[in-house]
Amino acid sequence: MGETTRGPGEARSPGRPVGRVLTPDRIVREALVLLEKSGDAGFTVTALARALGVAPSALYNHVTNKRELLILVQDHVIGQIDHRCFDELPWAEAVGVWARSMRKAFAAHPTLVPIYAVMSVTDSRVVLDMYETVTRGFLAAGWSDTDVLQAIVSVESFVLGSAMDAVAPEDVFDTGAMAEDFPLVARAGVAARGDHAGARAEAAFELGLASLFDGLDARR
Amino acid sequence: MGETTRGPGEARSPGRPVGRVLTPDRIVREALVLLEKSGDAGFTVTALARALGVAPSALYNHVTNKRELLILVQDHVIGQIDHRCFDELPWAEAVGVWARSMRKAFAAHPTLVPIYAVMSVTDSRVVLDMYETVTRGFLAAGWSDTDVLQAIVSVESFVLGSAMDAVAPEDVFDTGAMAEDFPLVARAGVAARGDHAGARAEAAFELGLASLFDGLDARR
Repeated sequence: MGETTRGPGEARSPGRPVGRVLTPDRIVREALVLLEKSGDAGFTVTALARALGVAPSALYNHVTNKRELLILVQDHVIGQIDHRCFDELPWAEAVGVWARSMRKAFAAHPTLVPIYAVMSVTDSRVVLDMYETVTRGFLAAGWSDTDVLQAIVSVESFVLGSAMDAVAPEDVFDTGAMAEDFPLVARAGVAARGDHAGARAEAAFELGLASLFDGLDARR
Repeated sequence: MGETTRGPGEARSPGRPVGRVLTPDRIVREALVLLEKSGDAGFTVTALARALGVAPSALYNHVTNKRELLILVQDHVIGQIDHRCFDELPWAEAVGVWARSMRKAFAAHPTLVPIYAVMSVTDSRVVLDMYETVTRGFLAAGWSDTDVLQAIVSVESFVLGSAMDAVAPEDVFDTGAMAEDFPLVARAGVAARGDHAGARAEAAFELGLASLFDGLDARR
């Protein structure tokens, strides 16, 4: 097996791959599908090679191990987050833009949340680039070297938790047959329902973001 | 195979299981091990039966499907969280006690975080019991039916994100060979290091918790 897939009867021209070449883009796209399907435990270079229809050796030309593969996938998702806002907007606005775009990026790939949360920044230029811009923005707003990462991480933790809540089903607070035993949750669960899919989670996120921001703002 | 495991030469007495009987406790203990090892995707009734050394039919006497199994595991972890504090302490103190004990419980079982985050409360008396007490505490502090779950979820999202950060490696902000290109993160990463394992994550959690609380306190 080589790096290409061919239709029946398609001849392979010698020395040059035809059909779907194994590009970083194609690897990331298939890796995200495999990750959502198999989770972290089933996510291996071999399993991805199988999903791509190529020999493991072909994939190893691009990534030498699982960590490199995860960095490739992580960089794709982190690359969708707006962090340039910290260079363009006042801190107070930039925090909101960054947090909302991070929640959106991870809500689209929730399986990546617990993986990203424990991945070291080492070796990822994309992640380091984001943190450098965000750190510059927080430092300019008055945070010190000692507490700047604590402030950034506190926002990130809230955003990652909220990204998971964003993919919870709409009826996550449905007390079902036990409504009579838990009347307060039953009533609040009905009251929390929004007028569109995702409204409940969005309202919780916006309330928490505004609250967390105000508390941080008072502390910088 | 029955519900018991026997050493070599041990006779099985007819009609009564000997050795390690399949109790809910034993099921939960083994389920937590399997979940950390295999993740959500590899976590099935069949796989757990194999890990327990029993026939799937024996396990099906206790849980009829994967959702029931997850509820059993979830209830074990949620049962370790202090929520009675809302009946015993002022709201301002109770939020902190509840949040800290929830972070600790989930940091011990991080694989459960993304599962719990999207699990409906329906059918779980333990989870509903926690939410009922917490909701009562928040309502008594002045929150309305409409926004009480938003406030609770905003704290929970922050706690779940922080529980994942709590299990990140100590050197999660190590810029490695790229320190020169990202000097602000490199400097802040060194400054953020605590004097004991977990100190960095704990400081971020406490800063975020205090900030989020103050913001919520001003809004109730």
